[in-house]
Amino acid sequence: MGKNLTERAEDYSKWYNELVVKADLAENSGVRGCMVIKPYGYAIWEKMQAALDAMFKETGHENAYFPLFIPKSFLSREASHVEGFAKECAVVTHYRLKNAEDGSGLIVDPEAKLEEELIVRPTSETIIWDTYRRWIQSYRDLPLLINQWANVVRWEMRTRLFLRTTEFLWQEGHTAHATEDEAVKEAELIMNVYAEFAENYMAMPVIKGTKTESERFAGAIETYCIEALMQDGKALQAGTSHFLGQNFAKAFDVKFATKEGTQEYVWATSWGVSTRLVGALIMTHSDDNGLVLPPKLAPIQVVIVPIYKGPEQLEAIGEKVNPLIKELRAKGISVKYDDRDTHKPGFKFNEYELKGVPVRLAIGQRDLDDGTLEVARRDTMEKETIPMTAVVEKIEFLLEDIQKHIYEKAATFRDSHITAVDSYAEFKEVLENKGGFISAHWDGTTATEDRIKEETKATIRCIPIDSKNEPGTCMLTGKPSLRRVLFAKAY
Amino acid sequence: MGKNLTERAEDYSKWYNELVVKADLAENSGVRGCMVIKPYGYAIWEKMQAALDAMFKETGHENAYFPLFIPKSFLSREASHVEGFAKECAVVTHYRLKNAEDGSGLIVDPEAKLEEELIVRPTSETIIWDTYRRWIQSYRDLPLLINQWANVVRWEMRTRLFLRTTEFLWQEGHTAHATEDEAVKEAELIMNVYAEFAENYMAMPVIKGTKTESERFAGAIETYCIEALMQDGKALQAGTSHFLGQNFAKAFDVKFATKEGTQEYVWATSWGVSTRLVGALIMTHSDDNGLVLPPKLAPIQVVIVPIYKGPEQLEAIGEKVNPLIKELRAKGISVKYDDRDTHKPGFKFNEYELKGVPVRLAIGQRDLDDGTLEVARRDTMEKETIPMTAVVEKIEFLLEDIQKHIYEKAATFRDSHITAVDSYAEFKEVLENKGGFISAHWDGTTATEDRIKEETKATIRCIPIDSKNEPGTCMLTGKPSLRRVLFAKAY
Repeated sequence: MGKNLTERAEDYSKWYNELVVKADLAENSGVRGCMVIKPYGYAIWEKMQAALDAMFKETGHENAYFPLFIPKSFLSREASHVEGFAKECAVVTHYRLKNAEDGSGLIVDPEAKLEEELIVRPTSETIIWDTYRRWIQSYRDLPLLINQWANVVRWEMRTRLFLRTTEFLWQEGHTAHATEDEAVKEAELIMNVYAEFAENYMAMPVIKGTKTESERFAGAIETYCIEALMQDGKALQAGTSHFLGQNFAKAFDVKFATKEGTQEYVWATSWGVSTRLVGALIMTHSDDNGLVLPPKLAPIQVVIVPIYKGPEQLEAIGEKVNPLIKELRAKGISVKYDDRDTHKPGFKFNEYELKGVPVRLAIGQRDLDDGTLEVARRDTMEKETIPMTAVVEKIEFLLEDIQKHIYEKAATFRDSHITAVDSYAEFKEVLENKGGFISAHWDGTTATEDRIKEETKATIRCIPIDSKNEPGTCMLTGKPSLRRVLFAKAY
Repeated sequence: MGKNLTERAEDYSKWYNELVVKADLAENSGVRGCMVIKPYGYAIWEKMQAALDAMFKETGHENAYFPLFIPKSFLSREASHVEGFAKECAVVTHYRLKNAEDGSGLIVDPEAKLEEELIVRPTSETIIWDTYRRWIQSYRDLPLLINQWANVVRWEMRTRLFLRTTEFLWQEGHTAHATEDEAVKEAELIMNVYAEFAENYMAMPVIKGTKTESERFAGAIETYCIEALMQDGKALQAGTSHFLGQNFAKAFDVKFATKEGTQEYVWATSWGVSTRLVGALIMTHSDDNGLVLPPKLAPIQVVIVPIYKGPEQLEAIGEKVNPLIKELRAKGISVKYDDRDTHKPGFKFNEYELKGVPVRLAIGQRDLDDGTLEVARRDTMEKETIPMTAVVEKIEFLLEDIQKHIYEKAATFRDSHITAVDSYAEFKEVLENKGGFISAHWDGTTATEDRIKEETKATIRCIPIDSKNEPGTCMLTGKPSLRRVLFAKAY
């Protein structure tokens, strides 16, 4: 196809890295571990943001903005949180540069040392709960349902575009509640919002579940998650929602007066999804020809490529196409008309296949004569010639059908890659040869989980929400287990 | 009015600080110089973002995202830029914390010192032009019209909520062009976009102009700006758009192959507006009763307060009001129905006056009997009772009329505070007693400008775009001047 893209079967990881760059989604920057999100990649993220933001607002949340910097002492307040986050982070120690006296250039001014170092936020629980102490006095101030769109920094040693970068973009919700029950319900609500977004917008089937203790967010009592399966059989954690109990309220002394006049600590949740979702989107649907994007998140839903010789033919095509573009845009469909004379149609076809544009129209002199045009869908690569009069209806059908079809394809793949096993030998065999999720009994201890991870690199992705009680015995230790959990190798 | 707000005439600065906090817009955080933007303040910023983003996209710009961190060496590349920005900035020197061996808590791990320090971006020209070198090879890659929504950090010693904070939110456009002419036109286009936004959305009249050499952006050949006048007679720079010549292209070696096959340096612009605009909005319209918001940027455009005794009356009011709310929302009008039983109507009236909600409806038993309700507009505080059947039309009229009226009020104030003077004595007299913009002749030298600034604290806000050639003599030195420029004390 002339795209010079490594095939997935040959080297999935290489295919991914090449595709991100060739499809103009993102690239590495001059700063180690930090990516530049290019306009086409950012446009996908913007569409994700818009959909999520509307869902958060519909469920009663408001946006706000908290500082980028967190004083070092804040991080130490919540004991388990600091273990998880204070280690690999960007530390601001000075607030000024100056010209070196020897003329060698800019140096850090030693006189501008901060009394207390500032950490570039790896997540904002601490600075936000320090703020909530001022905002919450009474039960009338609750619940407090706040979300923030922000950049965060976690110093990663091994980075990959979108999947794991030192700086990334995300949203982080931080809510405060009067009761434990309400906070738990909020954490569950958001898990469901995330799942709905993943399935309805990203066309990515997910499994909802809770994390085991060792995989929980640092500072959480319970971590809810949505787990997706990539085409190479590895799992990807796509979003997490944490019930934090009263841990942060206690660490930052956030109490409220109840209706009855007593003082109680506030109950908390936090939850987030990030630009990692763009990586998940790519790995769920794309193929050896390039990106396959769900119509609901595609920056360009329809591209029209004129096939012409000379300005007269182009003008005649333009006259046919312009009213169509108008009509499509009036319906809220994003259309690009690519009449560049610097590139041949074949080049353009390749480019839009690489970029995953769901529907491509091509129109030439023959079509003008016959009152037709050619419609191609990106997911199946099927083409057909249809009458011009039928095109709007066809496009509306295709945008819905592609969204549905790629979801079903991904769901079929995922469903066929959940394997129940009952012995450790079988577990290792499936993990090695088939991949995907493996449903197995586990004795509930971190020791067993750790040993399985050490020996196989598989982790417990989640304890599925909808899993049935099914007594059994742990595949490794033979100890009793109440139900199966899902293992997988993961991104 | 029960708002406990300092009056503007008494202490404008105190009034502003109190209003920002009492109206729930923002507050200082636990991190020196960094603010927390509260949901109500952030909702205004979101409305500004949405309007500006649409205007940028309509003029052909795309969004992207570049790293938060800038390697120290990048800042040194453009000589005048480094002078302006490298000094007061947040410097990341380490990438890890660890537990102190003596158990005293978290300390910076001395072994995790970065080879090269990273600066938290004060503005992104350097990291972006380092990226553009990879993106631009040929004239076909130009123009490159990119915008970024981001946070930036400038280490400020004296900060004020929204107006000057260490971290702030902004957009920064960075464009690359094949010709000088095209880049200049881009910088001018954006100045016009900013002016249109300020006048049409913020209802804030602005003067378009260029900056003098000493007020120019560090690294720019020409800085275009929009200047607004606050109610206390001080000017506020509301947006700037810079023609950067080939300075950054040369510093980062960004060349392109022309159509003719030669290699040329690329021409650049950059431009930005920030959360500072929220401060400008407050100081342009608000009064001793609180915020006055232009309907186009008001998070809540209409608030409805029921006046009732007991649940039966409330229910009867709800029955009347719910269809109205539906109808208004269907028209895209944001409505809040405040039926809280924890607060009295008078308290609510105060609160929404303080928060600048443009239109307030009140409805009680008497109104139910008469088929009426009370409509109050925030800008003039006028109230009237109208038939229920006329209310939708009335609200639509008011939202337009308030937008227009507060613009006109601000324009009248601004116009009456542009004073032409011909002597330095008169200049000082007007500056001291009247304030506002002072239109005066200046000899064009930085020395004169500096002396005036030293002696009076007034700076040249701009050389207005529409100013006529009008030969005269400098008010300070008597040297010849080609036209008048605008001086003012400024935020």
